[in-house]
Amino acid sequence: MESVIISTETRVQLIDITERIRDVVSEKGWKDGAVLLFVPHTTAGITINEGADPDVRRDLEATLSRLVPYRGSYRHAEGNSDAHIKTTLTGNSSLVILQDGRLKLGTWQSIFFCEYDGPRTRSLWIQHLEG
Amino acid sequence: MESVIISTETRVQLIDITERIRDVVSEKGWKDGAVLLFVPHTTAGITINEGADPDVRRDLEATLSRLVPYRGSYRHAEGNSDAHIKTTLTGNSSLVILQDGRLKLGTWQSIFFCEYDGPRTRSLWIQHLEG
Amino acid sequence: MESVIISTETRVQLIDITERIRDVVSEKGWKDGAVLLFVPHTTAGITINEGADPDVRRDLEATLSRLVPYRGSYRHAEGNSDAHIKTTLTGNSSLVILQDGRLKLGTWQSIFFCEYDGPRTRSLWIQHLEG
Repeated sequence: MESVIISTETRVQLIDITERIRDVVSEKGWKDGAVLLFVPHTTAGITINEGADPDVRRDLEATLSRLVPYRGSYRHAEGNSDAHIKTTLTGNSSLVILQDGRLKLGTWQSIFFCEYDGPRTRSLWIQHLEG
Repeated sequence: MESVIISTETRVQLIDITERIRDVVSEKGWKDGAVLLFVPHTTAGITINEGADPDVRRDLEATLSRLVPYRGSYRHAEGNSDAHIKTTLTGNSSLVILQDGRLKLGTWQSIFFCEYDGPRTRSLWIQHLEG
Repeated sequence: MESVIISTETRVQLIDITERIRDVVSEKGWKDGAVLLFVPHTTAGITINEGADPDVRRDLEATLSRLVPYRGSYRHAEGNSDAHIKTTLTGNSSLVILQDGRLKLGTWQSIFFCEYDGPRTRSLWIQHLEG
């Protein structure tokens, strides 16, 4: 299992980590099967969506915050219930197929680490699965 | 990796693709482990839900569109921000266990391709994972 | 493939099943790769989130029920459309990395079976994937 460190800068922030995952796959020499990307946190998730226009991730951040407001009526005393809920709605893992040593993504797809309670120093775990 | 083509007919449409995945598994002769179903688009997802009553998918389509309206206040200029957001809420991949060469699904489960910005011609990628 | 039985006690209930999954991994002697946790139902899901404070899951249950109310305007005649929709929003499978025969989870992560139309007797399927 490999691990990468991700430093986030604001409370809610989607960060394109596609190149970092490509680097790990290349360094490890994984050729086929798939990679499992696993976020070991409970207030951050991962998603695959459009990377070309930054407005897509801004719309995603804004819509999630409209559906699950930061200052809502929650019981959890730490004040970050919204972040836990967004994590479940987004999911905490993604899978990407490998082909000939390359991440197999669609034309417009990028991989985003989704910080919902930053800024923090985060980890992402990467496990190769045999095809 | 295998690929199937899916033609969608309306803007928002959940299509039962269970039989098409069964056909691929059968043709390839995959026996166990699991199959990873990966949607390489950023305005379409995949989910596993009830296939018996078409009203379940209509309720799902209607509820997603209530939570994330087509004509909302978005920044992305292409006019399909709702479709990108629904894709993240739904997810762009699913996994199904294989047993003795068969998709192992629950009694009521079907696999749905979720078109959120159609009609379009879409791809679905299918990767066998070793058990 | 292994299977565990989960008995739920109320209509909506998130149940921490981490120890039960640990027991299966230990009994089977699976060492590395990952485990796929698959819910074969259409009104129950699975998520990984904070297990320390029960208020986190209560906030998650309450927020999902606010976004997708039990008694909404639905077409599906069985009266459990909200449960089908919550299942898609949550997802019906999770993956956890194995390392040296152990579930590799973050400090605060627990695995939750998400009952959305209980009480019922449910199954969870567990498939080892090779790393």
